[in-house]
Order: sequence, then structure tokens, then C-alpha cells
Amino acid sequence: MYKSIFATEAFVRLQELARQPFDLSMPGALLESQRLQKYQVKADPFTLFYATEQIDEPVLKALQGCVEESLLVEQFQGMRRGEAMNRLEGYECENRRVLHCSTRDIFSGSPVNRELTQKSLEELSKLKRFLGELENGTIVNGAGETFTTMVQVGVGGSELGPRALYKALKAYSIHGRKVYFISNVDPDDVSTALRGVDLSRTLFNIVSKSGTTLETATNENFVRLALEEAGLDPAIHCVAVTGKGSVMDDRESYRAVFYMYDSIGGRYSTTSMVGCVMLGFVLGYDQVIEILRGAADMDLHAEEKDIRKNIPLLMALIGIWNRNILNYSTLSIVPYCEALRRFPTHLQQCDMESNGKSVDRLGGRVGGKTGPIIWGEAGTNGQHAFFQLLHQGTEIVPIEFIGFAESQYGKDTKFNHCTSQQKMIANLFAQMVALATGKDDNNPNRFFEGNRPSMLLFAKRLTPYVMGSLLSCYEAKIVFQGFAWNINSFDQEGVQLGKNLADRFLKTMATTKKDPSSIESAFLGELEKWCNN
Amino acid sequence: MYKSIFATEAFVRLQELARQPFDLSMPGALLESQRLQKYQVKADPFTLFYATEQIDEPVLKALQGCVEESLLVEQFQGMRRGEAMNRLEGYECENRRVLHCSTRDIFSGSPVNRELTQKSLEELSKLKRFLGELENGTIVNGAGETFTTMVQVGVGGSELGPRALYKALKAYSIHGRKVYFISNVDPDDVSTALRGVDLSRTLFNIVSKSGTTLETATNENFVRLALEEAGLDPAIHCVAVTGKGSVMDDRESYRAVFYMYDSIGGRYSTTSMVGCVMLGFVLGYDQVIEILRGAADMDLHAEEKDIRKNIPLLMALIGIWNRNILNYSTLSIVPYCEALRRFPTHLQQCDMESNGKSVDRLGGRVGGKTGPIIWGEAGTNGQHAFFQLLHQGTEIVPIEFIGFAESQYGKDTKFNHCTSQQKMIANLFAQMVALATGKDDNNPNRFFEGNRPSMLLFAKRLTPYVMGSLLSCYEAKIVFQGFAWNINSFDQEGVQLGKNLADRFLKTMATTKKDPSSIESAFLGELEKWCNN
Repeated sequence: MYKSIFATEAFVRLQELARQPFDLSMPGALLESQRLQKYQVKADPFTLFYATEQIDEPVLKALQGCVEESLLVEQFQGMRRGEAMNRLEGYECENRRVLHCSTRDIFSGSPVNRELTQKSLEELSKLKRFLGELENGTIVNGAGETFTTMVQVGVGGSELGPRALYKALKAYSIHGRKVYFISNVDPDDVSTALRGVDLSRTLFNIVSKSGTTLETATNENFVRLALEEAGLDPAIHCVAVTGKGSVMDDRESYRAVFYMYDSIGGRYSTTSMVGCVMLGFVLGYDQVIEILRGAADMDLHAEEKDIRKNIPLLMALIGIWNRNILNYSTLSIVPYCEALRRFPTHLQQCDMESNGKSVDRLGGRVGGKTGPIIWGEAGTNGQHAFFQLLHQGTEIVPIEFIGFAESQYGKDTKFNHCTSQQKMIANLFAQMVALATGKDDNNPNRFFEGNRPSMLLFAKRLTPYVMGSLLSCYEAKIVFQGFAWNINSFDQEGVQLGKNLADRFLKTMATTKKDPSSIESAFLGELEKWCNN
Repeated sequence: MYKSIFATEAFVRLQELARQPFDLSMPGALLESQRLQKYQVKADPFTLFYATEQIDEPVLKALQGCVEESLLVEQFQGMRRGEAMNRLEGYECENRRVLHCSTRDIFSGSPVNRELTQKSLEELSKLKRFLGELENGTIVNGAGETFTTMVQVGVGGSELGPRALYKALKAYSIHGRKVYFISNVDPDDVSTALRGVDLSRTLFNIVSKSGTTLETATNENFVRLALEEAGLDPAIHCVAVTGKGSVMDDRESYRAVFYMYDSIGGRYSTTSMVGCVMLGFVLGYDQVIEILRGAADMDLHAEEKDIRKNIPLLMALIGIWNRNILNYSTLSIVPYCEALRRFPTHLQQCDMESNGKSVDRLGGRVGGKTGPIIWGEAGTNGQHAFFQLLHQGTEIVPIEFIGFAESQYGKDTKFNHCTSQQKMIANLFAQMVALATGKDDNNPNRFFEGNRPSMLLFAKRLTPYVMGSLLSCYEAKIVFQGFAWNINSFDQEGVQLGKNLADRFLKTMATTKKDPSSIESAFLGELEKWCNN
């Protein structure tokens, strides 16, 4: 049994401190007592810069108290060792271990959970062989040609994380290799993707742990029909990532089968075969290992018990200050980096599906607000979209900025005496300062209240290693918040009701005899009327 | 002088009604008094379905009262005629007319604002000629070949709306024509785009009203250097969309110049040349006219004074009920349609930059909350991402669903007895019902509180006409809300402070002598330390 932060003495202290949070808009506030220098955490490859949050020494001390009273780091360690953290006490539940960190715990020689790391190493060596055979021409299409394209078919965790990483690291692609994704059950999603590729040179990577995900099974069927129509053999063009023993664990239908495990949740599965097969195809095996190394190093870092030295833990706790004490209901994640454009979409799942809960791990109503709404777009683009509201709207939105000193391609030009990269960095810093300090003006429309909090995760350059580190950093942050709220961050019962009702709608659609007293019939009756008008 | 809704009698009535809003989770609530049948507005091509909002007859009556006391429809008509609605009374401001509707008021023979419609018609006939010359081989590259690709270079309104429409209507593309976008000042954004295209067959469409937008000017410079490096003449490969008389209004540097006008704000400019040049290139002129026709018909519809018959007006007022009375701080827009995946991103700008304000049109503090945070992704994908929080989180999020009876390509397969399109519709309806009704369960983790509001905009199929109508519907909704809150929805002073500070950062970056007492120097000093470690 762990203690929720709502039951800690430190939380009572935080509530007292809420009466007078640090005011970022006071004259000179940002330059006060070496704040800019002091409020940084350096943990390679990232520096977390948090001087522009509404916090001060007493708040940090109380947050450290929450960490200790709620045993947050100990819970993280327990999770890594293999405790059944996906669990609700006294109620039917998944009751599983949570071992995504084991997929990258392959560098130390003494992994925390030997069993799952061993399994991960087996899959990695299968992948290495597979990629080698693609490279040396052992694996080819029916006409003896190499594969140039991979289409990943998967939804949720089987799409969002992998897609975010693909986009983030596209600059490192093997020349001539391309990746596309099919995820939505919308038939137009498949049609668009299939129009864009040369089927004969394409491998389809079908990803589903259960092997029965509605969207993925439907889209796989669509893809197989298209391959057959084109005179191609689906068994030559499809590979699978699935649970051992699922209906997709079938070497007759798939050219290769890679395994994922019950102890790795979909939204935490990017560093398992769910992400690695596709990333290996497009970036090469060595870069996949770099991603894993970055994630593994961050996992170790996350065990540091002093919040002033632990980046994900501090992000989690400042997030709790913003959410539970200052009552901000959303969090915007804004990478000043076009390559990270899809990373906020991945975090939308990873965070909101993990922590969008109302019940604690004992089945009781949780003691306060849980996961915020996560949203965001890349900067500088966001500045031309929603930053008006961030500066002058009636809702305060904490922001997590992400930035890099150098671009990926290293290709840049000077225009108006400075490079594009300099312009991007200047804008990023300017936003942090502007949101914090505000600005007085006699024209009320040009007045900026300020005191709007943000933080910045900063690194030199977005490499595969850095991306692995960033991914793991956010996974740890999310998990720490779940522990703090004492909720189960690893199930998703909230998506079941919609699934069940969809099945009922589909049954009603399929039968001619409709029950006039059911909601389904009433809805569908209206649908028919709309369509016939 | 118009009256804000906060000052109306109807608003007082709404506050009384807030004590007992309609409870969607009551047994039988959705089937009560023909609710499903009654709470619909039909206005071709859309039906708005709003039985799953927390409203009832008294609420609708009070909302109608707000419309009348605040003269919302009259203000909309005044805007269309050419009143200076972009204005703050008694303070320095843009003081402009707001005439985006005139860009499509070309079908009636008696346009509401003759002057701007005349100008729009002139640009449209320039565009028709230009597209004809591209088609018949008059406009070719230096080697006499046709252009196959257009890259739109623009940011904010010059990217988001056009890009959303391109993606929405890609299924209607002219065979062999492609479009890409460059928007971010991130140098990797340009590098990625330029890697993907054959420069010799590419037209660059540079879009900036002022001709001096930092990102766009920087990226244009980048593009011109790349063209020159490739031995191509930029003047042959670049066209411009800009204000008459701007630095970009120059036929020496651009192969063609199309005009936009001060009275058309960036975020409302999609149906001007800002969107039409690129959409004409990829879809053809006739489809552009279809988009405009859809938008024009919806503009007319928006003048209906009865909220029960006016889709955008009712959406605006239900939005106000959710925002100001039920206190929901965000709005999720979820199209069950992969082609509309970027439409929420466009609305993020159009809505949040318009209505993220705290000052009313007299310079006073606004009387309540204004624009909510807009976010969303396409369904069914969203179900596998953030719907867990929508169903079981501690924050209630109203949702605007968008759906279509038929797919765009019309290509579908049956799997498990039903088509992909049927699965998508079934899921959409199921979500609306599940969110509204909830579900009891002895397992607290499987309990759904319900009473979570949503509405649905539904049409037969996403055609260019329907897309025009949808765009205009949201523009009108946003404008109605701004009128209701009595704010200026047409300026964006909130983005200025960040711009000015960015300039200061850039100057400090460029000089070797730094002022140690300035925030810029302190930030940049830290930056140097981070990068050197």
C-alpha cells in the first residue's frame, strides 16, 4: 500500500504555500537571487530550466516532502524490478507487471529484471538478423527485388510513439527507405496510403499485441486484399509484431514474427519491437541501439531521489504544483523543433490514457484532480496559432518547451544577420520571458499580465540517443505523477464502454429488425433520415 | 456600441438555470420527449445533432435571448457589409473592416460588399488564367517542362487553413500534382521539404500579407538560395500572394503576384488567394469554386435569427453555455474522418487567436471567461489516445464531433460482416452515447459517470462544397462568440510582446558586448554554458 500525496503532510504545506505563489511578473523577479542559474537540472543530454515556474525554495522543499512521504522513487524502482504495478487492490483488474524499462536495460550486464531483458535481447537479435537479410538481399520480394518501403499498420500505442520517433529522426534515414502509417479504421486512410506506395517493394508491419484490435485487423484485411489484387503474395509482404501465441503468431501468414509482452503496455511500447522493427528498417540497427541507450541512461537517472537533481521527477512534481495547487487544467507541450511535431500527439496518449483516471489503487475516489489535458504544436508555428490565448486569454496554460542548440541537418543560412536556428532559439527564450514577466501598457489591449509559468528541456541536438532519452524522460514523468495520485497508470478501462456500445451499433446495423425502444435504433433511424434527405 | 452577453437579462436567467442543467446520465434521458428527433438543425449539407448536450427548452430559450439582446446576427450582418469590426473604442488599434465573407460572395449577383467582392473576382480571374496557362503549357520551367509540385511557404493563417483544406480534399487531386508546405523557421523544416521534391518541376508559392513575416521571408531566402544552387532561376519558380504594394508585389522577382487585402485577417483568409492559388493548383479551378460556393451558402445561412435553425449560431451559444455557465475550459474537436486530421489544428488558430482575449471592445476587463482551449485529433484514432480521460478523467471536456455517411474514395471492404465506414460511424455514435449515459458497475474502475456533453456535425460526404461549408460554419461560430463576449476577435496584440523580445534576443546574440544586467544576457549566458558542457 502506498500513500497518495493528498494524504501527505507535505501536501498540506503546499496548500498553505498556494496563498502566495512566486510571482514571475514582479519587477526583476527573473534576475532575483541567481534564479536563472540556480533553477536548472543538468543530466546529460538534457538541461531542465525551470526558473520560469511559479515556484520558490519552500515549494521545492514541500515537493521533495511529497516524493519522500509517497515513496515515489521506491515505487519506480519496484516497477522496474517487476512488481505488479498494473493493479487495483480488491477488484478484478489486469494485475500485471510494468516492464517497459526492461526493453532497454541491455547495457549494464546486470539488468534489473533479468527475465524480460533476456526476452528483449532475443527479439533484438532476431531484428538484427532480419535487417541484415534485408540489407544483403536474402529477404526480397517475389521478383527478387529489395524492399524500399515499410507501412506500419497499428493504432494507439502501435502508431503514436513509433510515428513520433520516425518523424523526429527522419533526418537519419537510410537513403532510399521510406515509412508510412495506416492506423484509422477510416477506409480513406488506407486508400491514401496505398496510393502513395509501390506495393511490390513494400513490407507491411502489422502491429497488435492481442492480434484482434478492430482497426488493425480491418486494415490488415484491406491491405492483404490490395496485395492479392496486385498479384502479390501477402505472406511475402507482411511481418507481424504481436504477443506470443496470438492469432498473428503464424509464420505461414507472416514472413517474420516479432514478440511483445503483456508486461509492456501499448503506450509504453515504443522501445519494444512495436517501434524497433520500423525504426530499424528506416534508421538501421545501430541507431535503434542508440535510441535504447538514451532511454536506458534516463531510466537510471530517474532513480535519483533529490528532485533538484532528477529531471523527470521534478517535472512530475512541478506538474502537480500546477495541477493540484494552482488548478491549471491543461498542459501545453511545445517543442521548438519541427521534427518533434508529432511528439505532443504521442504524449497525449501516453499521459492522458495513463493518468486520466478518477479511482485510486484501492478503488476509492481519488483525492483531487488527476492528469491534465495535454496538447501542443511545434514552435515557432504555435506562436502564429494559439499563443495569443496563452498571453492574453482568460485561461492560464503551463507550458513545457523543448529546444535544441543545433539543427539536425546542419544546413542553415543567414538572413537579417542571423541564422534560422538562432531565430528559433531567440523566439523560444523570448516566449518564456514574455509569458513570465508580462508588460505594462496604457493601451489595455497591449497590456500583458504575465506570471504564466513554463519550463524548458534543452539539449544540443536531436539525435537518436537524445530522442530515446526524451521519450524515457516523459514516460518516467507520467509514471511518477500516477504514483503521486495513487492511481493505476497502466490500465485503460475507460475505453471499454465505447467499444462495447460500438459492437451493439454494428449488430443493429447488420440486422433488418430493429428494436424501436433502443438508443441504437433511435440513432440509426435518425442517421437514415439524414442520409436520405 | 453593442451589449456583451454578460450584461443581458438572458445571461442572468442562464445562471439560474445552471443550478440544474439537464442530466444526460438519467435513465432514459436520451430517449425522453423525442429529444433525439427534436434537437437537430438541418441546413444543407449539414445536420447538427445536439441532443447529447446538457441543455433543455429553458436553456435554449435563454440562449435565444442572448442572441437578441446582444444583436449577434445584426453584428454579423454589419461585419459582412463592411463595418469596422476590427476595432477597440477609444484606443489605438487596427481599425479595419472584416470582409472575409466577401471572398466567396460571388454567386448572388448582388454582393453585400460590392467593392471587396469585385476585387476577389479580379483575383479569381487572374487565377483562372494562371491555372489555364499551367495546364496548356504556357507556364513552364526553364527547360520547357510543366510544374508538378507546389510548395506553399507561409506561416499561421498562410499555412494552417490552406493545409487543412489540402489534406481534407487530397482525394480530389489532379493526377500527378503534389503540394508541400514550409512554415517553421526551423531550418530542418526547409531541408526536409526540399529533400522531398524535384526542384526543377516545383513552383514555390510565397504567402505573406505584409511581405515581411520573419519566418516566411527567412524561408523564402532559403528556398531562393537552394534554387540558385541547383542552377534554377528563382523568378521562374516563385509566385507570390501578398498585399498590393508590399515588397513582394514585384513581377521581376515573382512569376505571378496575387493580392490579399487588409480587411481579410490571416486566420480567415483560406478562401482568399492565400488558399485558392495552392488549392487551384492541386484540385483545379472548378473545385475551388465549389469550395467558395459551399462557404457562401453557409454565410447566408448564418444570418438566420432563430438559433434552432442556425447551425453556427447554435454551436456558438451552446459553446457559451459550456464555457461560461458550466465552466468547461477546453473544447475538443474530433472529426471521424482521417482527411480532416489537420482541421482541429486550423481551428486552434482561428478560434484561440480570435477569442483568446481579456479586454472588451471598450478597453475594459471582459465580464467572464472567453475562448476555450481548442484541441483534438481524428477518430477513431483519438479513442486509442485520449478518450480514457474523456470518459473517466477528473476534467470534463465538451466535444464537437464531425462525421460523414460515406468515405471519399468509396473504396471499402467488409470484414466481420461490416465495412470500415460502418465501423467508423458505429464508433462515433457509440462514443456520443457512452459519454452521455455512462454506465454503472460494482467495480469502481469500470464505472462511468456519464453526463459528458457532445454534439455532431454530420454530412453525407466530404466534398469540396462540404469543406467550404464546414470552414465557413466554424468561422461564423467563432465570430458569433466574439460578438457575444464583446471582444475584438480580429486583432492579435498578444503575439507582439514575444516578437519584440525575440528581436532583442537576436540583437544580443549578434553583439559581442553583452549587458550583464539584462534578462537576455542572463539567458544567453546560460545557453552558452549549457552548450559548452
